[in-house]
Amino acid sequence: MERQSKPASASHSIMSELVLPNDTNGLGNLMGGRLLHWMDVCAAISAQRHAGSICVTASVDSVEFHSPILQSEIVVIQSQVNRAFTTSMEIEIVVDAENPRIGSKRRCNSAFYTFVSVDPEGKPQVVPLLAPDSDEERARYDEAQRRRHFRLFQAGRLDSEGVKNISEYLDAMKNTLAK
Amino acid sequence: MERQSKPASASHSIMSELVLPNDTNGLGNLMGGRLLHWMDVCAAISAQRHAGSICVTASVDSVEFHSPILQSEIVVIQSQVNRAFTTSMEIEIVVDAENPRIGSKRRCNSAFYTFVSVDPEGKPQVVPLLAPDSDEERARYDEAQRRRHFRLFQAGRLDSEGVKNISEYLDAMKNTLAK
Amino acid sequence: MERQSKPASASHSIMSELVLPNDTNGLGNLMGGRLLHWMDVCAAISAQRHAGSICVTASVDSVEFHSPILQSEIVVIQSQVNRAFTTSMEIEIVVDAENPRIGSKRRCNSAFYTFVSVDPEGKPQVVPLLAPDSDEERARYDEAQRRRHFRLFQAGRLDSEGVKNISEYLDAMKNTLAK
Amino acid sequence: MERQSKPASASHSIMSELVLPNDTNGLGNLMGGRLLHWMDVCAAISAQRHAGSICVTASVDSVEFHSPILQSEIVVIQSQVNRAFTTSMEIEIVVDAENPRIGSKRRCNSAFYTFVSVDPEGKPQVVPLLAPDSDEERARYDEAQRRRHFRLFQAGRLDSEGVKNISEYLDAMKNTLAK
Amino acid sequence: MERQSKPASASHSIMSELVLPNDTNGLGNLMGGRLLHWMDVCAAISAQRHAGSICVTASVDSVEFHSPILQSEIVVIQSQVNRAFTTSMEIEIVVDAENPRIGSKRRCNSAFYTFVSVDPEGKPQVVPLLAPDSDEERARYDEAQRRRHFRLFQAGRLDSEGVKNISEYLDAMKNTLAK
Amino acid sequence: MERQSKPASASHSIMSELVLPNDTNGLGNLMGGRLLHWMDVCAAISAQRHAGSICVTASVDSVEFHSPILQSEIVVIQSQVNRAFTTSMEIEIVVDAENPRIGSKRRCNSAFYTFVSVDPEGKPQVVPLLAPDSDEERARYDEAQRRRHFRLFQAGRLDSEGVKNISEYLDAMKNTLAK
Repeated sequence: MERQSKPASASHSIMSELVLPNDTNGLGNLMGGRLLHWMDVCAAISAQRHAGSICVTASVDSVEFHSPILQSEIVVIQSQVNRAFTTSMEIEIVVDAENPRIGSKRRCNSAFYTFVSVDPEGKPQVVPLLAPDSDEERARYDEAQRRRHFRLFQAGRLDSEGVKNISEYLDAMKNTLAK
Repeated sequence: MERQSKPASASHSIMSELVLPNDTNGLGNLMGGRLLHWMDVCAAISAQRHAGSICVTASVDSVEFHSPILQSEIVVIQSQVNRAFTTSMEIEIVVDAENPRIGSKRRCNSAFYTFVSVDPEGKPQVVPLLAPDSDEERARYDEAQRRRHFRLFQAGRLDSEGVKNISEYLDAMKNTLAK
Repeated sequence: MERQSKPASASHSIMSELVLPNDTNGLGNLMGGRLLHWMDVCAAISAQRHAGSICVTASVDSVEFHSPILQSEIVVIQSQVNRAFTTSMEIEIVVDAENPRIGSKRRCNSAFYTFVSVDPEGKPQVVPLLAPDSDEERARYDEAQRRRHFRLFQAGRLDSEGVKNISEYLDAMKNTLAK
Repeated sequence: MERQSKPASASHSIMSELVLPNDTNGLGNLMGGRLLHWMDVCAAISAQRHAGSICVTASVDSVEFHSPILQSEIVVIQSQVNRAFTTSMEIEIVVDAENPRIGSKRRCNSAFYTFVSVDPEGKPQVVPLLAPDSDEERARYDEAQRRRHFRLFQAGRLDSEGVKNISEYLDAMKNTLAK
Repeated sequence: MERQSKPASASHSIMSELVLPNDTNGLGNLMGGRLLHWMDVCAAISAQRHAGSICVTASVDSVEFHSPILQSEIVVIQSQVNRAFTTSMEIEIVVDAENPRIGSKRRCNSAFYTFVSVDPEGKPQVVPLLAPDSDEERARYDEAQRRRHFRLFQAGRLDSEGVKNISEYLDAMKNTLAK
Repeated sequence: MERQSKPASASHSIMSELVLPNDTNGLGNLMGGRLLHWMDVCAAISAQRHAGSICVTASVDSVEFHSPILQSEIVVIQSQVNRAFTTSMEIEIVVDAENPRIGSKRRCNSAFYTFVSVDPEGKPQVVPLLAPDSDEERARYDEAQRRRHFRLFQAGRLDSEGVKNISEYLDAMKNTLAK
């Protein structure tokens, strides 16, 4: 039986949150862990929309926190599936913060979360394929493969197809380094 | 003025949490984002103990979620500073889950968070040095340097000392790949 | 000085929430009050985006709850300013519930909240005008005026312009009744 | 079988809450949505006491927020069933705020919530009749009927008995308007 | 200047709570610590009403948990000042649980909390005297003195007046024991 | 069948919490009830570790709050089983507060909670014996018996063995008083 295919846009999710006192540290800045939690919930909604099932977080790629977000600011989190593998999906998440009182809006974070679709007993199950619809979605789709190979490499579970991909990636990193 | 030096053990922190219904997804498993939040709070306590100041999350390295944690289980999170840089520190966090009803205990996660010490205006400030006291702490101390270089490399901010370190690291990865 | 004018779309806000156990009654249905709270937060974000200031809830028009929303469903709340008056704005909010496991999505609620823009001392202050950009936005803009007159009428504070509007509205209601 | 009858006072409920930081907006005022949530919980207790079953929110009539309530103030919410219909009940809720530090107490809100009694499968079920015991309770009982007709009218589901009631009500409104 | 005197009833407070999933242990019973927290909030409201100031918890006498309280039950907490000392007050709290679905109501707990009135810098300050108005309030007023002496005795801070009181109390306990 | 025996250290639990705005009263001090709640969760973890089952709070001995704990401070709670009786256990809890910004740490509270081990239907069940391993643990083990007799005495359920114990205890108190 052929696997169903779904557009990336069908998984697009938007979450808006007001930063409340309990979300902040002693300086009135949003705590990083609270933001990681919100990003996980937004990504889970994208994963569920694509998979049509309960989905569980399998991994989070490294995340940097550049710009402090302040109490009473508005945090807008957007997420979308980049690529579906067999039972897992890579979700890309971007975070913006807005201060309506001064009319500012800035990009604060981006991240890649991997989710696995599970059946009611918690066993992984096959997800629909993702069909990218634009050049940007195709670029994300291709890069998702390379990030997946790098994750498998780091976990010591890389297959032969991935070896070639990561070998080229390491060479590219070495070239970058040489400059 | 010479920078003060503190032992790694002075920053050791332990947090225990009961997994409550609102912490779980529709299958009764702890949500990944909630765990990332708890890990951030535990790491923040270690960072504050080392730095003697408010500390903010600067980055999280990639985290994998291997073993689902169930509602009513006990989550024990431990964290400790691996190395202090100028204004930042690498914190290592390990997560265990216990089910006292069947007497089981298992390692679920480990992660590296980077925190920055800030003054009351939120400006980064110098932290005490970390003095490792055992072979294990010295090993963590050394590896923390390499992980920091890799973070700087990925962010495009690597200095000349780091280039040599990462070049060797990439070669080691290529060798691993070749096997 | 002329008041600034903003498009309705600039205030459009989207909030997504997962229904967690503590949001539900003994039957596993989302409690009405929790939904009213989320709608208020979403509407407050729209109001702040339009006014560029802190905004406080002044009133909520009557709300009906047609369709029960279940634990683990996704609630998507959208809000937008319909019309700006002097210091207050009418916000329209619509609520959809999704069950990704069966692929369903349904409209659950709509409501009108009125917010007032306040300065840092909490005093009402003038807000930008709203410029509707489509036929639908213009229809909402016109109806917002009539609803405002009806609110003022019920509060015993209707001005002369409003009397004519409400008089026609009551006649229309009487005609509806006669059928 | 005759329906059981219960006094209004048997459903009287009192809830007291301290306004905590997370309940407030950026000015330290209680958010309207949080108050609507608390009012819903208090009303649900009254409904359950009258119906002897789980009850779900069916509608909220329009609510105005006159007086800002501040952080650390005490909110006292009281609710009571005004009238029982077949499977639904109208609950009247009043809200007072107290500042014990200056010895003040003020009425802030009142509202009408409608709840429906449901069986364990969520199907509406018949509730006991309400027997008003005082002139005030009888006045509330009578007005509850008129409000119900107006709700049904607005929802386009008014029956013949209600037409007469609403027709008189609209005439009264027109007379008020003419003054 | 003479200290003001207030009736006990002026401090009477009522709090109603629905037991939600996150308030319960793995068996669906309300956790003891959550109940102690709610009792503290209710008692704080009574203390603030009597003292007209912020009040902080100074001690809790021993509390027994007799009857498990279940998820979805209604908890009704009532508190009242028994006696005012110089800067502290003894508050008596009683807890009832109701299951409206089976029409049951039962007394679950009672407790004595001591609060201290503090000024904005957190220094203890004198509170109004309490004037008991009924035989029951007078009995509670007298017993509060004896409990206070016993608390001071256990803390090693008993004054001479208290020695006689506690000596008699210990004799009474010995007599009870002898039976 | 002989009852299993477990060391006290196997039940040792550590919980760390950051004091957030919603945990504090109007002066920025941790509310007593919130601390009692955290102590109950920590003690429940110790009880579950000893009993290998769900455990419910049976009683809390009197608790004094000496030292205010401030917002943003770190609260470290430690608990351990002192003695196991038939189906119940006495847990000792100590609370420290740390302010890493000034490098201070202070003991704030200690308390005794009693928990009962229950089976899945909520019926009390026999727990393993506790085997104290040090002089300190043996002293706590012995004192736990006396506290238990005093609790039973206050509840009017003291057995003959306990009478002698409490009689001596009351005599000792009288002697203390006489000094």
